[in-house]
Amino acid sequence: MPIIVQKYGGSSVENIEKIKNVAKRIAECKKEGFDLVVVVSAMGKTTDYLIDMAHQISDTPKKREMDVLMATGEQVSISLLSIALNEIGVAAISFTGPQLGIKTEGYHTKSRIAEINKNIILDAINKGKVVIVAGFQGVNEKNEITTLGRGGSDTTAVAIAAKLGCPCEIYTDVDGIYTIDPRLYPSARKLEVISYEEMLELASSGAGVIHTRAVELAEIYNVPVTVALNTGNIKGTIIKELDETMEKTAITGLAVDNNEAMITLNGVPHDIKIIADIFSKIAKLDINIDMISQTTPVNKLVSISFTLPKNDLSQAISILEQYKKEIFTFSYETFDNITKLSVIGIGMKSQSGVASKMFEILAENDIAVHIITTSEIKISYVINPEDQKKAIEAVAREYNL
Amino acid sequence: MPIIVQKYGGSSVENIEKIKNVAKRIAECKKEGFDLVVVVSAMGKTTDYLIDMAHQISDTPKKREMDVLMATGEQVSISLLSIALNEIGVAAISFTGPQLGIKTEGYHTKSRIAEINKNIILDAINKGKVVIVAGFQGVNEKNEITTLGRGGSDTTAVAIAAKLGCPCEIYTDVDGIYTIDPRLYPSARKLEVISYEEMLELASSGAGVIHTRAVELAEIYNVPVTVALNTGNIKGTIIKELDETMEKTAITGLAVDNNEAMITLNGVPHDIKIIADIFSKIAKLDINIDMISQTTPVNKLVSISFTLPKNDLSQAISILEQYKKEIFTFSYETFDNITKLSVIGIGMKSQSGVASKMFEILAENDIAVHIITTSEIKISYVINPEDQKKAIEAVAREYNL
Repeated sequence: MPIIVQKYGGSSVENIEKIKNVAKRIAECKKEGFDLVVVVSAMGKTTDYLIDMAHQISDTPKKREMDVLMATGEQVSISLLSIALNEIGVAAISFTGPQLGIKTEGYHTKSRIAEINKNIILDAINKGKVVIVAGFQGVNEKNEITTLGRGGSDTTAVAIAAKLGCPCEIYTDVDGIYTIDPRLYPSARKLEVISYEEMLELASSGAGVIHTRAVELAEIYNVPVTVALNTGNIKGTIIKELDETMEKTAITGLAVDNNEAMITLNGVPHDIKIIADIFSKIAKLDINIDMISQTTPVNKLVSISFTLPKNDLSQAISILEQYKKEIFTFSYETFDNITKLSVIGIGMKSQSGVASKMFEILAENDIAVHIITTSEIKISYVINPEDQKKAIEAVAREYNL
Repeated sequence: MPIIVQKYGGSSVENIEKIKNVAKRIAECKKEGFDLVVVVSAMGKTTDYLIDMAHQISDTPKKREMDVLMATGEQVSISLLSIALNEIGVAAISFTGPQLGIKTEGYHTKSRIAEINKNIILDAINKGKVVIVAGFQGVNEKNEITTLGRGGSDTTAVAIAAKLGCPCEIYTDVDGIYTIDPRLYPSARKLEVISYEEMLELASSGAGVIHTRAVELAEIYNVPVTVALNTGNIKGTIIKELDETMEKTAITGLAVDNNEAMITLNGVPHDIKIIADIFSKIAKLDINIDMISQTTPVNKLVSISFTLPKNDLSQAISILEQYKKEIFTFSYETFDNITKLSVIGIGMKSQSGVASKMFEILAENDIAVHIITTSEIKISYVINPEDQKKAIEAVAREYNL
């Protein structure tokens, strides 16, 4: 029988009733003739609750121990779902990440999957069992429990599908991928299909439906991933490899990110060594700089604007204060209230003029743009938050999003 | 440095404050110059909560999955205690049962420890770390998570102490072993020391302070076990091998069990085959029969009384109803409200007349006795519950308990 990997997120298993419903859905899929591997997250807000307990004890809990702690959340879910399946006559067996030989590399609380023992899964399937897997967790070379970072259950599901060479279905509390987050733009369209590249750019630009690393992995191993509502009765969105010439419109989707801040550096000497020095000092603090734009030099001085996560703003400022003392022309301004708007479309590869068209739209609507960056399939703009609604509506109208 | 195994039960780690207190206590012991292996139970009522969730899904949840579920309780405790220790500057590392190579045999939810990998413990100790171990759990030969049954954390602690050849301290919410449960007899004395044999008989006669299997294991490997209050500032009771001649009194302690029922069979043919058949049918239902007494035959018919757990009474009755049809002389009476009183003392081995003295005491106080059984160091009586208080006081007075 064909195998499908399904993943149910925390909101799909947040209480006993919902776990029973997931069991019923799995029973139906089994009846339709599929063998199933089911990856589950921790129940509802369990992970937050566990983290909160640790933080009541320490502001900097050992990450090794955080992994031991957090891994219990998924372990509870797999046992309860397995009990629920067996109760309705569907043979099921649960496995923790370590039990399934999900070997990981890298650091505690943000490990990466290195290997999965597919024989354990196939043995259980051959015995007619639904295989229930704890998402988000694995074991490192020292036999320590590890976790994959928030949203890591998506990655577990895609990695297993890649290993088994089968499709993956991610069930969540939204019914698919939309051109724009429907909470921001209620008349947004649901996409039937989206390419890996576009989904990656959307996910990394603030659209939180699916974990970025899961999409990367799906692209590498060419795993078709369906994102759908956990009730299973509404058609979701398929993420897969797409031929760009099949696309009709230049822009597939629009993402909004309100978690970034912007810093503008003025009076920076036009010397690549100095500029590199500033950014490398910031990078050493593990601050992820996103958009950067630099003006042309005037009197051998340039201005540089860049965005960074809001939470990291104060740390970055401490670096910049040092340069103020060393370079007499240097000053900086911070903007902790900005909106990053990204338009994404694989069609941009073949259709030119998207950037200029976008400028036109923004100009027509009196929307000031602070930074622009472009990649092959994405253009991002930093605008003022008060222009966000107007900008979304103008772009959505123009590109029929 | 000498090693000590300490065990903290669920009430000692029931909330974050108590976990911090346990960490402080461990830090003090470390300062006093001990290396420590600390076994912890699940926080407070966690195990009950987990079992309740499973029972909301199924009346007969798969035992394999119950073990996966219940094992999470101790895993949460070990990580939080390790975080708490590291927070106050005491290097610590946590291990689940499977991580520590606690190999088990037997059935899910009531497995027995077969082997422990002491090298993992010693390696961590040699690195200067306090080793935190999840009690109650292990892993079987199929790499499945197993648990040891309620109270199994005591067994984990004693098994590790046996393996390391070191003493074991069980910290709990009572400050030691008393001659009589102080809730039943407030002026009971705390014992400084008690023999393994006596503790085993006390534990199996209804004194619930420490897990029977832990005492058995301690006796086999001659591990001295201290039972004390989790605040650590009150001297507890040491359970160890005792030379009976050192004892002064015949009776060390008195245990009361109100969880048993009694059945009296009348008109049973004095035929060992029939009697064996009745008890083997009851045993097949996994009903644990405790005390048995049989009258001398009258007209080739005997009466037999026995005790069994109250919960099993209705099952046993279903068996007896069959015999009523087959044997015309046969009838039975049930008594679901009885008190089992056991007096225990290693001194009985050398001092005769304890049983007759006890009869005297009970007779003087007008206490009716339904069954008596004796072992080398224990005499148990079934009496009416309304006589319980009077009987305890009379025995305690006579033997200075």
